[in-house]
Amino acid sequence: MGTEPTMDRVTAISSGQNPRIKALAKLRRGGERRASDVVVVEGHYEISVAAESGSDIVELYYSPDVVAAEELDLGRAAGARGARVFALSAAVFKKISYRQNPDGWLAVLRRFETRLEALTLPACPLLVVCSAVEKPGNLGAILRSADAAGVDAVVSTEAVTDWGNPNVVRASRGTVFTVPVADSSAEVLVPWLRDRGIRLLAAAPHGDVPFTSARMDAPVAIVVGSEQLGLSADWLDAADTLVTIPMVGRVNSLNVATSAALLMYEARRQREASPAGG
Amino acid sequence: MGTEPTMDRVTAISSGQNPRIKALAKLRRGGERRASDVVVVEGHYEISVAAESGSDIVELYYSPDVVAAEELDLGRAAGARGARVFALSAAVFKKISYRQNPDGWLAVLRRFETRLEALTLPACPLLVVCSAVEKPGNLGAILRSADAAGVDAVVSTEAVTDWGNPNVVRASRGTVFTVPVADSSAEVLVPWLRDRGIRLLAAAPHGDVPFTSARMDAPVAIVVGSEQLGLSADWLDAADTLVTIPMVGRVNSLNVATSAALLMYEARRQREASPAGG
Repeated sequence: MGTEPTMDRVTAISSGQNPRIKALAKLRRGGERRASDVVVVEGHYEISVAAESGSDIVELYYSPDVVAAEELDLGRAAGARGARVFALSAAVFKKISYRQNPDGWLAVLRRFETRLEALTLPACPLLVVCSAVEKPGNLGAILRSADAAGVDAVVSTEAVTDWGNPNVVRASRGTVFTVPVADSSAEVLVPWLRDRGIRLLAAAPHGDVPFTSARMDAPVAIVVGSEQLGLSADWLDAADTLVTIPMVGRVNSLNVATSAALLMYEARRQREASPAGG
Repeated sequence: MGTEPTMDRVTAISSGQNPRIKALAKLRRGGERRASDVVVVEGHYEISVAAESGSDIVELYYSPDVVAAEELDLGRAAGARGARVFALSAAVFKKISYRQNPDGWLAVLRRFETRLEALTLPACPLLVVCSAVEKPGNLGAILRSADAAGVDAVVSTEAVTDWGNPNVVRASRGTVFTVPVADSSAEVLVPWLRDRGIRLLAAAPHGDVPFTSARMDAPVAIVVGSEQLGLSADWLDAADTLVTIPMVGRVNSLNVATSAALLMYEARRQREASPAGG
């Protein structure tokens, strides 16, 4: 409520040689990131979504020279909830930023839960499984669609890119914090789904059921594969139904995030038409 | 049919100072590209799609050190149809490539037609209008979906990115050559559509008709707007229907290419259900 854009307990950092800044820079490497128990999130909007979704901000970095005055509430709120807050010079902030045009906000969050066992599912779950999807932009777009379509969880298997990848976080527009995500493998996930009566619908170019005819108002997991190779034989064999999106063009290559969105929204449409489904 | 991977009339270039190489590098700049009458396409797959779709290859560059032997047919076929073919050292090819991992193929094509007047439409057209869509990746993804869904043309208005942008060509996976595209403006396009009895369906977050309820089995143009700002007031005013994609999440931000794909496939679904539509 203060009119002054000041915060208590803010530590100023003006040297790029500060050990904290060096440690942050190390988190760019996937291995280092996965070994630690944190994720790095950049951007006022994304950090706000994470905070509102209950994520725990451990450290918050901002550059008073760069951020907008009306954004400072984020710093105050995070500080009040126990985050350590650091004020950086614009030059130092550039060193830790992943963006071309940083908005002056970056946070270190406690890593979100990604264990399959931690998922809590409703009576008629709708899941999306991404097997070996490579591009962070596609994983992020799938999360945005999953959030909008009301998908209960997105599970990554045979992962090439981790959920904490800064480009996934960014492309997801913060939905990596609003949609439950998990990591698994085909070996573990297939029996897990079977045990719960969740049918597997695998998206395949030569599938035999058009997606608008495949029943998705029962408990179902939509499985999509890698950009280059699609789904492995293991997944195709495990699937209860191979669904296909009819294509009438000359090139006929839908983006994997587009295919996933079409399937999610078809499930949603069917569930609205028969709300007692499951 | 030759077993030897050789081509007639191939000019070798081994110096980055070659004037042809310098001219090619200039085409990276949008202004230079639009002023010229050509587009640059990289990649064996994309060039093949363009050639099969009737595009005219003016110059074809390849690097014998990089390309796969089974790809050389492309060079032979282009040469036979009058293209000038150039063999480049790997180092020189790197200079003209737009990619991180070039596959050794790059072509200069005669610019494809983008005048609105040149479009030929069927009795019950399905069009997509992209107003001020910024990201080449999104324009490319929209073209891929348009190809697969059988859209008759994609028109760009208030353009920020031109159809010849190498990143559009790349993200489109060659569909920029298979789907008719055009450039226009709201001022010109709105009356043009009205004259042809084509209804305007504008995608708007607060639209009043859910997309699965909006009639799309009649002549229709689906209009989507910029990633940041959506559609301008002009477009929203001009629209016959404001359609919305219901979102039930916490962030509720669908990617523009995803929204466009959902609308295109809903149109397709309706048209299959009532094939006499229009």
